[in-house]
Amino acid sequence: MKIAVLGTGVVGNTIATKLVQLGHTVTMGSRTANNEKAATWVKTAGSNASQGTFSDAARSGEIVFNCTNGANSLAALQSAGAENLKGKIIVDVSNPLDFSKGMPPSLFVCITDSLGEQIQKAFPEAKVVKTLNTVNCNVMVNPSMLHGEHDNFVSGNDEGAKTQVKELLTSGFGWKNVIDLGDLTGARHQEMWLLMWVRLMGVFGSPNFNLHMVKG
Amino acid sequence: MKIAVLGTGVVGNTIATKLVQLGHTVTMGSRTANNEKAATWVKTAGSNASQGTFSDAARSGEIVFNCTNGANSLAALQSAGAENLKGKIIVDVSNPLDFSKGMPPSLFVCITDSLGEQIQKAFPEAKVVKTLNTVNCNVMVNPSMLHGEHDNFVSGNDEGAKTQVKELLTSGFGWKNVIDLGDLTGARHQEMWLLMWVRLMGVFGSPNFNLHMVKG
Repeated sequence: MKIAVLGTGVVGNTIATKLVQLGHTVTMGSRTANNEKAATWVKTAGSNASQGTFSDAARSGEIVFNCTNGANSLAALQSAGAENLKGKIIVDVSNPLDFSKGMPPSLFVCITDSLGEQIQKAFPEAKVVKTLNTVNCNVMVNPSMLHGEHDNFVSGNDEGAKTQVKELLTSGFGWKNVIDLGDLTGARHQEMWLLMWVRLMGVFGSPNFNLHMVKG
Repeated sequence: MKIAVLGTGVVGNTIATKLVQLGHTVTMGSRTANNEKAATWVKTAGSNASQGTFSDAARSGEIVFNCTNGANSLAALQSAGAENLKGKIIVDVSNPLDFSKGMPPSLFVCITDSLGEQIQKAFPEAKVVKTLNTVNCNVMVNPSMLHGEHDNFVSGNDEGAKTQVKELLTSGFGWKNVIDLGDLTGARHQEMWLLMWVRLMGVFGSPNFNLHMVKG
């Protein structure tokens, strides 16, 4: 499948690499067509990897991963273009972290709204699925690196889109447990977890952890 | 040990009952000395159980459990009296849930402050330890009812107070895993979890669940 990965940071890099390894054709999108980080990635990722502008990538992708910094996500997607996102799944792994007041970060949207919902509102003809944002990118694409069962969340308003993303997460990325939080308002909770995640990273001294829901 | 439990709801009832079963002498505090719910509890809980006003209870307790509704916690503790809380541990299990706009609830304090911190600020000579607020009260006092390992959090500014509460949680309530989030700003994260908890209760169809942190 042709997949766009928006963002050239470590999250975009890690996800784009995994998708190529899974046999997908991936275009990494960034603000400029010749972004250096994307060019470096293309060189190592093989013949199914290419780069382009946000717009180039979104146009070519059947699915679009938003791996941009949360603060820039709406601008990046505007740059990708509503016409290139129409009818497509946007897998939103971003977080609305606000570092403007230093550490620990705050959130620039929360409780009654979320970045995932803001993206859906800005691109009503796309199908936003929020997922993976609650773990470090190494865990995103290699969940078995943790010792024991643990859970990933999804939320979104389009059931078909969620089913397709869940299939990619399980068969592709290797997730055994995917908890469906329902409609995209679930993104509020997925994003709020990040503040606890940052706290726990400090306690554990490592970003390699995740939560598992235990039932009675 | 003499322990005060402020609050006559299901949380106060469950915790007070457990504490009596553990051999402690418990006074349940409420707005009035002859509260009917407290009287009913005293009748069934045995000779180590008594009731009184918030002030009566706090005066007699060496440790004070705040099991009041979050929206009323500060008022209840004011009623208990700063002089009766001075130097004592306040185990704060409350949540700042705001149901004023219906379901799902919001929080009346979050991100940059927490109810735990507001209580500490209002009673600077008490030692607030935030804990147990992330689970249903049945799980609070009987963690082994869930299938598998799972975690409780503590936060607080006084290390000695946290040590004492952790001992009660492990040896008394049966918690195997208690994660220390550090100082009382950790209460922000413990309290924010409640919104996800409410969402997950809807997904799972039961309040009997908890999270477990899985590491690499």
